[in-house]
Amino acid sequence: MADSRLVRMAELEIEPARLAEYIALLAEEIRQSVLLEPGVLALHAVALQDDPASIRILEIYADQAAYEAHLISPHFLAYKAATAGMVRKLTLLDTTPILLCAKG
Amino acid sequence: MADSRLVRMAELEIEPARLAEYIALLAEEIRQSVLLEPGVLALHAVALQDDPASIRILEIYADQAAYEAHLISPHFLAYKAATAGMVRKLTLLDTTPILLCAKG
Repeated sequence: MADSRLVRMAELEIEPARLAEYIALLAEEIRQSVLLEPGVLALHAVALQDDPASIRILEIYADQAAYEAHLISPHFLAYKAATAGMVRKLTLLDTTPILLCAKG
Repeated sequence: MADSRLVRMAELEIEPARLAEYIALLAEEIRQSVLLEPGVLALHAVALQDDPASIRILEIYADQAAYEAHLISPHFLAYKAATAGMVRKLTLLDTTPILLCAKG
């Protein structure tokens, strides 16, 4: 199967004192991205139970162009500006999808 | 929102010489789990581009009972037995979902 999707894993370490504030901004950014951008197929964000300030996001874009459009979307730029002081560390891992399989 | 879902991240290191074989078995196990088990909502597996023998799986189950049923399903047990010698390291990270958001 030809697969043009761009799939990435983001690993973030958030300033613990600002975690609740960060999570609210992240959730809003995810909602808007999936709702408004045709090429943002899924954004799945979780926090590690043993280290709640460690966040992982699985990001699925339709293709490279969709990802580049996302980076300059107003809601993403607003999220980046608002959360700049809350993110201690951000690691972006490029991935090759093996199988992305969901119900329905 | 009450959320009974159980969401986990698995991090695996695969024996490089057996990677292609492992990936085929993993993909088959994912297909069968999502198709046959009502409580397996999604399994998203990716390999890291910089280290293709490093695999990450985001696992979304309806609830704890669905996860326990998965662990004793014939296809999961067959996968575990077949891949036992291929997995160098397996780390299971329990997570708290922040937002799992996909199109449609």
